[in-house]
This record gives sequence, C-alpha cells and structure tokens, in this order.
Amino acid sequence: MSKSKINVGNFFEDFQLGQVIRHAAPRTVWPGDVSVYTALYLPRFAVQSSRAFAQAIGYQDAPVDDMLVFHLVLGKTVPDVSLNAIANLGYADFKFIRPVYYGDTLSATSEVIGLKENSNKETGVVYVRTTGSNQRGEPVLAYARWVMVKKRDKDAPVGPAVTPELPKSVPPSELGQAVPPIDVSAYDKALAGSPYFWGDYETGEKIDHIDGMTVEEAEHQLATRLYQNNSKVHFNQYYEAQGRFGKRIIYGGHIISLARALSFNGLENVFHISAVNGGRHVNPLFAGGTVFAWSEVLDKAEIPGRSDIGALRLRLVATKDKPCAEFPLNGADGKPDPAVLLDLDYWGVLPR
Amino acid sequence: MSKSKINVGNFFEDFQLGQVIRHAAPRTVWPGDVSVYTALYLPRFAVQSSRAFAQAIGYQDAPVDDMLVFHLVLGKTVPDVSLNAIANLGYADFKFIRPVYYGDTLSATSEVIGLKENSNKETGVVYVRTTGSNQRGEPVLAYARWVMVKKRDKDAPVGPAVTPELPKSVPPSELGQAVPPIDVSAYDKALAGSPYFWGDYETGEKIDHIDGMTVEEAEHQLATRLYQNNSKVHFNQYYEAQGRFGKRIIYGGHIISLARALSFNGLENVFHISAVNGGRHVNPLFAGGTVFAWSEVLDKAEIPGRSDIGALRLRLVATKDKPCAEFPLNGADGKPDPAVLLDLDYWGVLPR
Amino acid sequence: MSKSKINVGNFFEDFQLGQVIRHAAPRTVWPGDVSVYTALYLPRFAVQSSRAFAQAIGYQDAPVDDMLVFHLVLGKTVPDVSLNAIANLGYADFKFIRPVYYGDTLSATSEVIGLKENSNKETGVVYVRTTGSNQRGEPVLAYARWVMVKKRDKDAPVGPAVTPELPKSVPPSELGQAVPPIDVSAYDKALAGSPYFWGDYETGEKIDHIDGMTVEEAEHQLATRLYQNNSKVHFNQYYEAQGRFGKRIIYGGHIISLARALSFNGLENVFHISAVNGGRHVNPLFAGGTVFAWSEVLDKAEIPGRSDIGALRLRLVATKDKPCAEFPLNGADGKPDPAVLLDLDYWGVLPR
Repeated sequence: MSKSKINVGNFFEDFQLGQVIRHAAPRTVWPGDVSVYTALYLPRFAVQSSRAFAQAIGYQDAPVDDMLVFHLVLGKTVPDVSLNAIANLGYADFKFIRPVYYGDTLSATSEVIGLKENSNKETGVVYVRTTGSNQRGEPVLAYARWVMVKKRDKDAPVGPAVTPELPKSVPPSELGQAVPPIDVSAYDKALAGSPYFWGDYETGEKIDHIDGMTVEEAEHQLATRLYQNNSKVHFNQYYEAQGRFGKRIIYGGHIISLARALSFNGLENVFHISAVNGGRHVNPLFAGGTVFAWSEVLDKAEIPGRSDIGALRLRLVATKDKPCAEFPLNGADGKPDPAVLLDLDYWGVLPR
Repeated sequence: MSKSKINVGNFFEDFQLGQVIRHAAPRTVWPGDVSVYTALYLPRFAVQSSRAFAQAIGYQDAPVDDMLVFHLVLGKTVPDVSLNAIANLGYADFKFIRPVYYGDTLSATSEVIGLKENSNKETGVVYVRTTGSNQRGEPVLAYARWVMVKKRDKDAPVGPAVTPELPKSVPPSELGQAVPPIDVSAYDKALAGSPYFWGDYETGEKIDHIDGMTVEEAEHQLATRLYQNNSKVHFNQYYEAQGRFGKRIIYGGHIISLARALSFNGLENVFHISAVNGGRHVNPLFAGGTVFAWSEVLDKAEIPGRSDIGALRLRLVATKDKPCAEFPLNGADGKPDPAVLLDLDYWGVLPR
Repeated sequence: MSKSKINVGNFFEDFQLGQVIRHAAPRTVWPGDVSVYTALYLPRFAVQSSRAFAQAIGYQDAPVDDMLVFHLVLGKTVPDVSLNAIANLGYADFKFIRPVYYGDTLSATSEVIGLKENSNKETGVVYVRTTGSNQRGEPVLAYARWVMVKKRDKDAPVGPAVTPELPKSVPPSELGQAVPPIDVSAYDKALAGSPYFWGDYETGEKIDHIDGMTVEEAEHQLATRLYQNNSKVHFNQYYEAQGRFGKRIIYGGHIISLARALSFNGLENVFHISAVNGGRHVNPLFAGGTVFAWSEVLDKAEIPGRSDIGALRLRLVATKDKPCAEFPLNGADGKPDPAVLLDLDYWGVLPR
C-alpha cells in the first residue's frame, strides 16, 4: 500500500516501441526565470539580455535562452524516461523550432523510437523523440535522445532490438526556424559586443574563451530544481555519499549552460543555438570544479531562404580545472583528455 | 542615542492583550518569486507550475504557492512578534482564504490574543492571530501562532495569564475558500502527473515520498531572505558560532516547503494546502542535512457545497538523513525519533 | 588566430582622453531581478518592496532598488574599463537621475576624463564618467569612477597626465532627481517600519544596525553574475587559488548592498540613495565572513524646491566579523580598523 501511488520511474522492460508519453507537469516560463538563469551563468548575448535589442531586430520580445528552454523540456521527461538511467548516451536531430517568450507554458511528450537490450540483460538503451510545445500546442523544440536504463528484472522478456536511423547532423535547410526575419541594419554590433558576423569566421578557427567559472553545490542544485529535473543524483548527498563518486553529480546541462555563457567571449554575435548535431558528457563534474571552454568552427553554412543570418557549426568543449589555451580534447594516446567534461557539436546562428 | 531608532524587537512584557500590530513592510509578490521558489524546492504541482493548467480549470492565473504566501506573511511578523522568541510553539486555526496572484501586494497584522508568563519569570508565551491581506485589504491567510518570548526584565510586572481557546482542527466547512470553482473535466491527470483523485485515498494510508534533498547554507539563507524574515539565527555565523548549536539554524518553514515539494510524489493532485490544524518543529536542521518525507492520510472530508474538490487530512513528517520507507515518527520509547524534523497536520485539497 | 576575436580588456595605454565607449550588452531589468536581489540581501524598504506602497505616494510602480541599478550599469562597464584593473580607487559625482522600473532596459556609456600613468610605468589611473540610460536614451545614473589599470607594455608611450576636477560632494540642489513628487500624507509610517522622518535625525547621530549577515560563495557569485559583471577575481577559484589571497574576492558592490539592507534597522524611511559623494573599499571580503554595519549622520540638507523630501548625508561603514556597537572605523594609530570593509559617503532621501 505504501508505495502504490509512488512514481519510481520506468525500467527498461516498461517501455514499448511506439509508446507516446505525455509528461507532467507543464511549466510556465516565468519572467523571473531569466533572472535566476542570469545569476547562475552570466549569459550576455544581447538578444536574450535586452528586450529593446531583441525588438529592434525583429523579435516580439526578448526570447528565452535556448538552453533554458531545453533544460525545462528535458526536466519534464526525467520522471518518465530517465529516473532509472545510468548513462545519458547521446542526442541527435535536435532543433529549436519556434522562439519561446516569458509567459509561455511549456509541456513535453516523448515517443519511444528504439529499444535495445544490452547483452548483460541488466540494462538496455531507450531511444525517445521528445517534443516540447507551447500553450498553443506548437512545437518549440524537438530532439532524439538515448539513455541506458536499468531493468527491474534481469529475466523480464523484451522485444526485438530496434535502433532508429538518426541523422549525423541537422541539415542547413532546417536551421533558423526559431529566428524571425532579422533586420541586420538594426543589429548594433557595439551593443552586442563584437564586430564579427558570419563572414568573419573561418572553418577550422579555434577560440579559447579564456574565462573560468567555479561551481558550488548550492548553484547546481538551484539550477536543476529550477528546471524541475528530479534526477536523484543531483540533490541527495545522503545517498550519493554511498554512491559511485561519494558526492552529488552536477547535471550535465549545467555544464552546457556554463560553457555557452563563457563562449560569449569570442562568439558574441552567435545569439542562437539553432540545432545540436550531437554531444557527449565525457566526464562528470563535482562542486568545487572550475569550468573553462573553447570552441572550434567545424563548418559554415548558408541557410536556404535566409539572407539575414548564417550558421556556424561549432564544437564546444568544456574542461574542468584546465585552461583552454591549448584546446584540450584528446591525450597523446587518442583517448579523451581527463579534464574534458563536454564535447558538443551544434549549429549556431548569427547575422550575415 | 545610538540605539534609539533601532528595533530590537518586543519582549514579553511589551505585549498587551488585544493589541493590534500592523507589520512593516508590505511586499509585492513579484513574478520572479515563483522562479526563486522553484529553484529552492523543485515544486511540481501543475496548478502552481503552469498558468495554462490553472486557467483551464478555473483560476484567473497560476496561484502563488501556498507556502510562499505563508512565508511572506510570517516574515512580516518577525520584527514585531518573534525577534526575541526562543521557541516557535505552535500553529492553529490556520486557513487560506483567497488565492494570491503574482502582482498582489501582501501585508500583515497581528492581534495579541493570549499572554502567559512562564513560572521562571524569564520568558512567557505570546499568542497572536495574524492575518495576511492583499492590496485591496482582503484577507488571504489567517492563523493563530504562539511563541515563547524572552522578558527584557525578569522583574517586570505582567498581567494575568490568558490562554485563548483554539480549535484542534479546522472544520471541513471552512476549507477550500481559496479555491475557485474547479472544472474537473478540464483537469488533465496525465499532465498533473497522477491518476489518483480524492476517492482514491484511504484513511490510514501511508506514503513514503522516497526522494531526499540536501540543504546548503546558501540555499536556506536565500530562502529566508526572500521571505524578508530577519530572524537572527539564520544568517549570522559570527553569533551562532557562539550559540546553542555552533551553527546557523535553518528556518523551520524551509523544511515545510521542502517536505511539501517532496510530497508531490504520491500526492500529485493535492494541489492546495487549505488549512493547517497544527504542527511542530521537532528538531532543528542544519546545512548539510538531507531531508526526506512521508505522509499519512489521517482523515477524509467532503467540503460542504463543493462537488469539485474534496479534502484529505494529512500528516506530513520530514526527517533528517533518514529515508522514510518505515515511516519514522516515534522511537520504541514513545519519544520522537531523533531524525524527525517536522510533524505537520494539514488539510490538503484535490479534485473529486 | 585563436585569440583574435577575444576581448582581453583594455590596458592603460589603450585608453584615450575624451574617448567614449558604448558598452555591451544592454540589459532589461526583469521582474525577476527584484526577487533574486531580495533573496540575496533581505532589503525591506517599503517603496521598493511594495508596488502598492510606491504607487500610493506617487511612483508609477515600485522603483528598482538603487544599488541594483548601479550594479547593472557598472557590470556593463567591466569588460571595457576594469578587466585589467588591480584596484578600484574611487567614485565621485555619483547621482541617480531618474527612477528605473521593471521592464526598462539599461545600457551604459563611459567617457575617459582622465589618465595618469604611475611612476612605476607598470600601471596608470583611468578616470571615466559613466552614464547609465534607459531604453528611451534618458540617463538614469551618472558617476565618475577611477581605477588603477595595468599596462600591457611598460614601455608603451602615454600622453600627458590629466586629472579631472571632481566635486568633493554632490550639492543638495542636485538631489532627489529620481524621486517623483511624494504625497507625504499617504506615506504610512507604520507600514514603512519607523516613525522617524527627516526632522528626527541630527547631524552627528550614529546608528548601530546591530544585525549581521554571513556570506557564502554561491551567494556572491549569484549576485555578481546577476549583474553580468565578469570581473575575473570573483568566480574562478582555479586562478584565485594561485592569486594574492588564495581565494575568490567578493565583489565590493555586494558589501554595499548588504550594508544598505542592514541599515534598514534605524534608517527605515531613507528609501532612496540619491547620490554618492565618495567611497572606499577598505578591505576585501571573502566567503564565510559576517558583515555588520553602522551609520553616521554627517549632514542634513533641504533640497531646493522640494518640501516633500529632505536629504541626510550618511556615512555607511561595513565591517567583517565585528559588531558595530562601538562604531569601528579607525584604530588607535589612526589607521583603518582592519575589520572595516567599506566606508561610504552618500546622500539618502526621506520624507519631511
């Protein structure tokens, strides 16, 4: 009786191919979320920082930071998808579709698009396609994600393995959907903080974002609760003291937001993350660590039908307690540098 | 001269029976308070989390979380009522009367309804009835509270002891006042996160809310300042290092809010705390502790005139560093389990 | 190539007399900023705390806290003015000119009004006059500030020394600009928390604000990021561990806001800081320290043309781990008491 009403999360054998999950609970993006988000990361991109700037170039209001939208949508899915996950394996086909403004209410649904039991029969990989929508039911964000989830019962029967086909990258024709037509003549470079537009970046260019940010326990807990992400490993020192690392693990998305904010220095006009091609949390972060970041321009693309904005395919690497003047990624042995936390591949958008 | 303009708080002999205190300073509930509150506790009740959900069922907007309303009202009373309190003894006849929305301004008044000197003549019990009102002067919350307050001068004369009659519980006829008529057909159980309505709970049922939340110094300080609660013991390590515990004491209301948020798992549709029958802070909490919680259904009640909502009388118990699978409350000796922080008796409201 | 797009800040020889810098990035003051600010400092001044109170006396809405306006404007200037500063030397002619309301967007420009190389040729003093403006281009705050900035190259040639003439104090005729006409009859002293108006304070009067507030790492980091102040010394423990103090230095403005909030007890009706005559960060503060504060009335002034409000010239002193019953300032040797953090000279405004 005592646990009958409790959500203990889904185990691998609970998922069914084609199943659609409507996640609880919808979440209004309050006009205070931007303040807490700013206090957590120090973002400075002018379009999100200033209503006046955003409206001058064509937005109806300052849009909500892309990563805040992502964190809120992901947070909804945790109780159903990843409460029993032991690894966050990857993202693909991740696109922002519409701008989100303060006052909008976000909800999320996920469709199970793949299931593959591991050979140890103790875990399996669950693939979902998650869509975040606003209060009008319009999609604002969609992505595929796959996580390794525990089985409740090793002997539980499971269906045949199905692995979905997922694109290696989001094609340029699908970029910029969440960006209204921009009046580039009204985009004030001095106010934005940089003279560099799309044409000024070159493929292969690397940028050390130089600054670092130390993370405290209270900070990552505040962040992850703000996103209503109730994954157990972030908040419960009583259990984590007995766990793998002996301490609370910082939500991987916290590192993405920190690295994104640090990347302002050098990418000031890349005001929007339009799509994520893939990404990996290479190592966990714990409180007390200092996050540094660097970027590499992997590719450049024109966006069909858009003369106002162009896209840069960017690798964003975050490290722990290691400045990035030498762009740390892999060691001499080809394995990831143990200081690397994050290796993210995304399309950023900026004026042309 | 130096201290003449300073508020050092009232001592027991400063209170007069029947005295009405208008508390400083009024406080607008800003649209950012919900963000900070969410970042502090991870509440997920759909009515407060989503404007769209709240409006669909009949609220004019997402209402402010009940406990946030309480903390703000209580905070106003601290400088006048409890700055020299050494114990927070109890609450009774505690009712939410009207919904509060972002943009409303709360103020508070307290009437002294009882005074009883202790036999040691060093302290006395002060009973107040506090009313929180909005900017239109409409009451939104009322409660009786009693605290043990120091005397400034042991020899100061005091009046005869007066102990007010207070109800043991709030009757069902007084519940639901802050809930507009609910369109239950528009209440989306999947979005709210649970299929269980009023009819699905039984008296005697116990629920272990399973999750735990570790509290950091910065977090409880942010919370208590948000509520403008200037009680000295929460913020001043310089003094507390020399005090009873050697460290800052976490505001008891912080524990209530944490336990309430944890109780979402199992009580997802209990979207409103309508009344508090009584409650006790059994032990103090300090930073670093992990809070767990469990609930018991003490009683069920129909609310006269309301076919949309019903009430559950709930015991909410919070513990420190002790999971609640076995519902810890009292030890074998009948004394409270030393892990118990809070024992709260309230009426929660949910759809029928 | 790797650093070509990076802002490493200006060095002394990069500044030119008369140069005007438009700072990135504009920042909307969100309705959530007041919540985070309240959670950080526990301000209780009724005019800023309550929209209803502010509107009753003549404001169009609750104005944004003066110090929050200052922090946001200063934050904008850091990347251009003080990223390579090693000392924040002073402020003068610091005036609030218009009220700021939530929803306004602040931007900032600075003019270089003085340059003076130090005799060691390794550093120089840069004087700027900074103006913060709203989205209509109306100035809301202006101040002169001077900082000691490193030279990139000791041998770089610099121009002749120019030291601007700056007033020792702001004259009363320039006070109250950001305060609309106040209906003093509607100013409710009980709600504001004190019966003392302008006529009740005397020159020479000292007030011990009695309370103290301990500062955590997460708190000052949240604050300084909220202000988008990216000064390196506040966030990066990796570098600071190797630095002067071995730890992160708390932003001096954080101390001003703490001391201002503590000063409520005794100065409840001094609802506005109208001007700053000067100020000094006497010693640095680190996390774990407890801040206390005291004030002295240095002078009183009528404001020409205003019968509603008057001005008090106040010294606000903050200390670390030292209660202020004896108003610590200088030691027996005439040198500053090592516990003193801040010595601020400002004009506060209150009803007459």
